[in-house]
Amino acid sequence: MPTEQQVKEELNSVIIPGAMRSLVKMNLVREIFVSDQTVKVTLASAALNQATQDWVKDKIREHIGKLAGAKETQVDFVEAKPKELNQIGHVVAVMSGKGGVGKSLVTGLLAIALNREGCEVGILDADITGPSIPKMFGINTRPTGSDTGILPVLSRAGIGIMSINLLLEHEDDAVIWRGPLIGKAIQQFWDDVLWGKLDYLLVDLPPGTADASLTVMQSLPVSGVIIVSTPQDLAAMVVRKAMSMTQKMNISVLGVVENMSYFLLPDTGKKIELFGKSKGQEMAKAAGAPLLGQLPIDTEIAKLCDEGKIERYQSSAFTSFSQSCIQELAKLEKPRTE
Amino acid sequence: MPTEQQVKEELNSVIIPGAMRSLVKMNLVREIFVSDQTVKVTLASAALNQATQDWVKDKIREHIGKLAGAKETQVDFVEAKPKELNQIGHVVAVMSGKGGVGKSLVTGLLAIALNREGCEVGILDADITGPSIPKMFGINTRPTGSDTGILPVLSRAGIGIMSINLLLEHEDDAVIWRGPLIGKAIQQFWDDVLWGKLDYLLVDLPPGTADASLTVMQSLPVSGVIIVSTPQDLAAMVVRKAMSMTQKMNISVLGVVENMSYFLLPDTGKKIELFGKSKGQEMAKAAGAPLLGQLPIDTEIAKLCDEGKIERYQSSAFTSFSQSCIQELAKLEKPRTE
Repeated sequence: MPTEQQVKEELNSVIIPGAMRSLVKMNLVREIFVSDQTVKVTLASAALNQATQDWVKDKIREHIGKLAGAKETQVDFVEAKPKELNQIGHVVAVMSGKGGVGKSLVTGLLAIALNREGCEVGILDADITGPSIPKMFGINTRPTGSDTGILPVLSRAGIGIMSINLLLEHEDDAVIWRGPLIGKAIQQFWDDVLWGKLDYLLVDLPPGTADASLTVMQSLPVSGVIIVSTPQDLAAMVVRKAMSMTQKMNISVLGVVENMSYFLLPDTGKKIELFGKSKGQEMAKAAGAPLLGQLPIDTEIAKLCDEGKIERYQSSAFTSFSQSCIQELAKLEKPRTE
Repeated sequence: MPTEQQVKEELNSVIIPGAMRSLVKMNLVREIFVSDQTVKVTLASAALNQATQDWVKDKIREHIGKLAGAKETQVDFVEAKPKELNQIGHVVAVMSGKGGVGKSLVTGLLAIALNREGCEVGILDADITGPSIPKMFGINTRPTGSDTGILPVLSRAGIGIMSINLLLEHEDDAVIWRGPLIGKAIQQFWDDVLWGKLDYLLVDLPPGTADASLTVMQSLPVSGVIIVSTPQDLAAMVVRKAMSMTQKMNISVLGVVENMSYFLLPDTGKKIELFGKSKGQEMAKAAGAPLLGQLPIDTEIAKLCDEGKIERYQSSAFTSFSQSCIQELAKLEKPRTE
């Protein structure tokens, strides 16, 4: 008869359509029971519609049937809510207070850095009225789901993404909601999305210190915040407002990223500080946190974002940013899961 | 005995401390009565505290006392709310959906253009959690007021400004409010600020299509919206969301401004499209409105904004933007005031 470990390995190779991650990574396996007569597998049905459940059942029978000594395979589903199944190591929010400084870009690049490092990463796009994550990653698949929940959409590299834009009929549709509805949408992205097992869930906050930021800081177990700034005084002031919010909410700042720090002239490679002298070190000092990186204005980034191919980005500034982030996030307390 | 016109002219030279505009421009003069014995002036007391009222009384007596034939001058105050006194030609909202595209810059430049043209202009900074107008204009005076209302702070060139940042203890303080409070603050900036007589009140909206934008479009008599965009696809998408909102709210788009359109290399003057090919014409077409201008990334603007000296800005791109705006706004129906 097959061992439990063998069964588990087989389940790990069953990829859920829509989510594109395995049953094990989605944390749907509730019980495995092996006797000399049968292999019994109990799965949570969260966010899986009937067709997916049937497909998964067949797929499991097929996989386990191949194991030496396996006779009968029984697959049962039990109800469970996504929130009960999600195991998220750390929630890290990316914030700035000011708009257009590159929060979504930093969120995206951080996710890519962690993904390349071998971590399981998700992005919760909390910018309900101005979501930019899906476009950047070239994603326009509609998420699938059931009465109990919804599955994130996976990027090419394997980053789980949930954004209001994936749920709109047209990407240009405006979400004209007042604050309470926005807070509720974010809460649902936390409660009702089957994220599964993730090392990091990154939350891309909208500009400002209103509903979205409040909901995330009050309702989600945020391990820390990464602050994004640009060299302009004006941005720096609004960013200091964001810092003042994290202090009031008692949430630690993990680091500061300066975006649009400089521009390298295409012909000569000369460095121009388009938005004034860098304030990265100053901002980091004010936040009492390390400066995780200084990213240039890069026509290549703009192009890749517009084409939905951000995951292809390479540059020395990005490499050094990635290393600092990975190093800093590694200092976070180990999560208490399993 | 002096004529009513003479009295009015004298009143027009009495500048209210704090507001820095005359009694007439603030629309505080309710009644002028001239007999051979006395000149009686009745003023609304809205937003004027006791000290200011006393000061104004003395000043009026002094001014009118100089007129030939004036014997006794009597000044009375009557209660009135700012909202009853404000006479605003057109409310124009500056919007983008996406943050950091330069809404506040465009609002500021538009105000300066109209002011240089001789119009009376005010700016209502509706970006409650990320206000940047005061810093750009180098304003940090606390507004004065009374139980009935509050006076805007005047810029060097004479633009009336109201922003939450002027009311905060420190400019770095975060305004951590949920949507309903934000809507209420904007409503108060409309109801309780004594704007007086203005040709244009420009409203600088925050990014997004949530509470602030909703409140402005639902509660203020908006004549039209100016949409600000940048050449990035990502920005264009979020801007189209803003347009979709104006359609749903039945508010007309007066024009589109493309910011960060290009950058002129300092040495060679070569034009680089840092954020990709211009989409100005395309966005204007989508909005069914004229392209009012294409503004470059200009290190000079960044510097002047940081130094609070935006009113000193000059450039050919700005001149052409100003002319288009003035031309387009002139097409608006004449207001029905006086």
